[in-house]
Amino acid sequence: MFNVALFGAGRIGQIHAGNIAAHPDCKLVRVVDVHQPAAETLAEKYGAQASSLEDALRDSSVNLVAICSATDTHADLIEASARAGKAIFCEKPVDLSMERVERCLATVREANVPLMVGFNRRFDPSMASLQQALSDGEVGELEFVTISSRDPGAPSADYVKTSGGLFRDMTIHDFDMARWLLQEEPVSVFASAAALIDPQIKALGDVDTAVITLTCASGKMAVITNSRRASYGYDQRIEVHGSKGMLAVANHPENSLIKSVAEGVVAQKPMHFFLQRYGDAYRQEFASLIEHLKTKTAIHPSGEDGLQALRLADAALTSLKTGRAVQL
Amino acid sequence: MFNVALFGAGRIGQIHAGNIAAHPDCKLVRVVDVHQPAAETLAEKYGAQASSLEDALRDSSVNLVAICSATDTHADLIEASARAGKAIFCEKPVDLSMERVERCLATVREANVPLMVGFNRRFDPSMASLQQALSDGEVGELEFVTISSRDPGAPSADYVKTSGGLFRDMTIHDFDMARWLLQEEPVSVFASAAALIDPQIKALGDVDTAVITLTCASGKMAVITNSRRASYGYDQRIEVHGSKGMLAVANHPENSLIKSVAEGVVAQKPMHFFLQRYGDAYRQEFASLIEHLKTKTAIHPSGEDGLQALRLADAALTSLKTGRAVQL
Amino acid sequence: MFNVALFGAGRIGQIHAGNIAAHPDCKLVRVVDVHQPAAETLAEKYGAQASSLEDALRDSSVNLVAICSATDTHADLIEASARAGKAIFCEKPVDLSMERVERCLATVREANVPLMVGFNRRFDPSMASLQQALSDGEVGELEFVTISSRDPGAPSADYVKTSGGLFRDMTIHDFDMARWLLQEEPVSVFASAAALIDPQIKALGDVDTAVITLTCASGKMAVITNSRRASYGYDQRIEVHGSKGMLAVANHPENSLIKSVAEGVVAQKPMHFFLQRYGDAYRQEFASLIEHLKTKTAIHPSGEDGLQALRLADAALTSLKTGRAVQL
Amino acid sequence: MFNVALFGAGRIGQIHAGNIAAHPDCKLVRVVDVHQPAAETLAEKYGAQASSLEDALRDSSVNLVAICSATDTHADLIEASARAGKAIFCEKPVDLSMERVERCLATVREANVPLMVGFNRRFDPSMASLQQALSDGEVGELEFVTISSRDPGAPSADYVKTSGGLFRDMTIHDFDMARWLLQEEPVSVFASAAALIDPQIKALGDVDTAVITLTCASGKMAVITNSRRASYGYDQRIEVHGSKGMLAVANHPENSLIKSVAEGVVAQKPMHFFLQRYGDAYRQEFASLIEHLKTKTAIHPSGEDGLQALRLADAALTSLKTGRAVQL
Repeated sequence: MFNVALFGAGRIGQIHAGNIAAHPDCKLVRVVDVHQPAAETLAEKYGAQASSLEDALRDSSVNLVAICSATDTHADLIEASARAGKAIFCEKPVDLSMERVERCLATVREANVPLMVGFNRRFDPSMASLQQALSDGEVGELEFVTISSRDPGAPSADYVKTSGGLFRDMTIHDFDMARWLLQEEPVSVFASAAALIDPQIKALGDVDTAVITLTCASGKMAVITNSRRASYGYDQRIEVHGSKGMLAVANHPENSLIKSVAEGVVAQKPMHFFLQRYGDAYRQEFASLIEHLKTKTAIHPSGEDGLQALRLADAALTSLKTGRAVQL
Repeated sequence: MFNVALFGAGRIGQIHAGNIAAHPDCKLVRVVDVHQPAAETLAEKYGAQASSLEDALRDSSVNLVAICSATDTHADLIEASARAGKAIFCEKPVDLSMERVERCLATVREANVPLMVGFNRRFDPSMASLQQALSDGEVGELEFVTISSRDPGAPSADYVKTSGGLFRDMTIHDFDMARWLLQEEPVSVFASAAALIDPQIKALGDVDTAVITLTCASGKMAVITNSRRASYGYDQRIEVHGSKGMLAVANHPENSLIKSVAEGVVAQKPMHFFLQRYGDAYRQEFASLIEHLKTKTAIHPSGEDGLQALRLADAALTSLKTGRAVQL
Repeated sequence: MFNVALFGAGRIGQIHAGNIAAHPDCKLVRVVDVHQPAAETLAEKYGAQASSLEDALRDSSVNLVAICSATDTHADLIEASARAGKAIFCEKPVDLSMERVERCLATVREANVPLMVGFNRRFDPSMASLQQALSDGEVGELEFVTISSRDPGAPSADYVKTSGGLFRDMTIHDFDMARWLLQEEPVSVFASAAALIDPQIKALGDVDTAVITLTCASGKMAVITNSRRASYGYDQRIEVHGSKGMLAVANHPENSLIKSVAEGVVAQKPMHFFLQRYGDAYRQEFASLIEHLKTKTAIHPSGEDGLQALRLADAALTSLKTGRAVQL
Repeated sequence: MFNVALFGAGRIGQIHAGNIAAHPDCKLVRVVDVHQPAAETLAEKYGAQASSLEDALRDSSVNLVAICSATDTHADLIEASARAGKAIFCEKPVDLSMERVERCLATVREANVPLMVGFNRRFDPSMASLQQALSDGEVGELEFVTISSRDPGAPSADYVKTSGGLFRDMTIHDFDMARWLLQEEPVSVFASAAALIDPQIKALGDVDTAVITLTCASGKMAVITNSRRASYGYDQRIEVHGSKGMLAVANHPENSLIKSVAEGVVAQKPMHFFLQRYGDAYRQEFASLIEHLKTKTAIHPSGEDGLQALRLADAALTSLKTGRAVQL
């Protein structure tokens, strides 16, 4: 049985709390949040207790922590939890600074505790089926990966300010998917981007529309297209081209109703955003963590996966600034 | 080389004229129409001559006639052409009266000339692929046929008056498709129908919305649903269920453009009507006729196919009037 | 807060137990099952207690019962629960005998307790969206309903023996959907059916493949096609044709992966069976019940809905035996 | 009436010959080919005469030429035809050398004759509908264009040798589509490519798999992905993202048959290659040319369009060699 302390009772923390509570091998025991009433409300719902960070880490019955707090607290909480000997789940990213991530991962290695970084999309049943079919050779040797990723609408200026920018905040998921599918580290990154959607994003020096090309030593390529706005909903598609064919994950419509009228044949829009689209992925992600902890097998996505995705994000930013492909 | 005389220069005659002219083994030589200018215009377009019926039948160079005139002239023209020793293509139906069809087919048999009845849908590439896959056993033993057939809009009252009614005019195509797919004659017909769309159709004693169930001695069934109106275009779908799966022909959209906006994901409507949807079918139908004439092999759909479809239409009408299944 | 006693700890009882436990306004307090260990296991999972029927009905803190036991116990349990003053959810059917259902509903009326009959499909988000769009007039006046309903595989002979036959066991869901969408009681029922799939089903005098036509006084029609086997998964589709267009609910694929290879473009099969396909429907069904209980508004599907669906099933059986349409 | 001389009786010449012959305002009068029997066969089929180039250009009744011969003859034939005062249709490309194209277009300007360059995809009904919807503002302001273009299989080494390489031979169509949709000239080109499919292509110094990013001064972007092989058929898709949504052209399946079996739901592959997929486009292309000649309006795609597409192809090649984005 895993007794879990949850750090962060916000939107994403609530998702994980529900999945922890529903898992037959887990129990949510402590909820920590800087906003104490939020911790209390969430704790009460699942029969856990609101707790200070210190108490949670000192509680020897807690053997797993789930870090869902603000990005700038992740690295510190990982290190504190590692030193306390807890197994760790942490929402992406570990940190926005490569140097800080590397230091943090060194601490985790030293403490020799398991760490999963929350790249949830790997666990989406459609994405996971694609990766499995690819691994099984159903389309032969991989040649090309195409990732389309668009949010339904631009985030607030406040969010953008602390986000680390499009590449570190949003594209980082796509970098992880690209690495996971390519099964080979890219050696070159080229990015082209602009702020076409939101003048505030432009004013903050960030971009909202981008295309990034990744190239591997073997010649395999990946192209990622991003936008902070898709008026038709959350656009999450992946194509993989191999020597024998293509595997593609399509968008998931809100439901299967189709209306045929004089104006056309109208299907439902894709599910609105990540909470709807990746609800199953969050459940499977946690189940995978528990399975690996139980069997003491290697966990992915690992801290190293988090580091490598950030490396690609930083390279994309450099490419954008210099107008040149960045060699890794 | 087949020298063809075309009887009827209207909408459907023009379609066949184009296909005859484009066929490498055919030449359109004579066009006959009660409206002489229509015959002349069409003849000129393809380097043929406008002609009287008598001259066309007397012309020994003419070895094939294509009958595309008004329904009530079909049987007479078939008989006259048969006596003149011509191979015959005739648009459906041979006649609206079973007795007249039987007499007409007797004349054809006596003259020993080839006859194809124009059930064009058998030659649509999608429908033909379905029938081939079924024959090849791709879904095992056939159990059930579902035919959805809806026109984009109700015909004029004038058309309805001479049409023979929904079952003989429109459903007759579906009866032919059902027979072709079942490969077994139905032994029972039950029809339910109403005039829901057009008060004029009701006033004329006809129906515009119907469902017909056909049952075979083996237990195989077919269900046909019809409507004289589908605001989204010509609805032409078939499903075949077998012991190992389902084969389905979907509608054909006008083109492949799809628009994703806040209101939904909007695809194009099905092609408007039979001239668009079955353009390829008309071409293939004529090509099949020529191929069979060249190889002196059995032609389908035959006169007998025309007769059997009419038998089902008449049975459906009887069922509708009596409220009971009609046994054949 | 609703304290719920669950009767029946089998497959469907477990589904409801999970939904009851997850609902913020409910608490699962007692689980009753003739097989005591099953009751205990399920009770323990959700912090409830295994209980005898008598204790559950005597427990005044229990204000809602969920009846998920064997079909032949439903009517008795409804009556006992009604007399004990409990609100009642009962899985379909109330009973296989019209007379028994009528007596049971009289008891419920006398006791004046709320009763929902579990026709879960009304609560499927896709089906509910279709019904809403129809009610909103998005396709004008309703003319025709088409329901395709196929199970992935035939049930065991033991199941078939006590099922009441195809119409009362399987089609009854489709009769309910037809009534819900037509918003008018059918006045005529015609059924055609055969045992094409399983010799055991034939030996038991039941059928496994069927088509049923329902006609209303207004001329509106519905056609239901059923099969006990669809090798490609659970086939659950509905089409509604109105004066301005069509609304259709498509099947739900297992996931959205599509493979394009030399053999074709291969999408995933529909979800396997009702537990997968209607997982959301069961959740929404229970949520709807609680909402109506809280607001003291009329519950649907009601006992009367259960009775009317059974009336159609009985009429279909009579039609099948007589080969005639049955007038209601 | 346009009397057309056709130069080149090969595969693509035969396509145009059929469309010329079927056009009500055109007559195919002369066919020129270095292989005289090919010219004769094609001429005979449409009642034209096989001819020398000189005779065709000297024939004052010829007012339009269609150049469908080998690429390295295009520029010479355009110039000779222009000097002879003929209106000109020329298959893409004008030439593989920018300098040669510019000289050729100067000659055309001097002769003041109309010239259409055969970028046929602009005339595909689906692509044309996309462009129209975009121009009509149906998805707001354009932000991003995504073009997927894959051939079913790699060409022969002989073809590759004289093709000018992937960018000038294949991507050039996509460059034209990108320009046509962006409605703004790209200012930057970045290409990444490899020879992953065919060792012969690699040996010849060419590539077979590529991704090219185009950027405009306004920030609008386009990304093109290419492959010389798609085992599932000719992959021709375009997506356009605007401020209000997405427009997409999907692949066109060979027919609409769909098979649902235990292995999945199997739809037909995309049409095999350009002759099938773009049959309608070739017809519409020629119809557009004639319409513009009749109304003396500006023709597109123009010689300038041909030149600009080649400029992008050359820039892509430079980018590939230098590993840097090329500024235009």
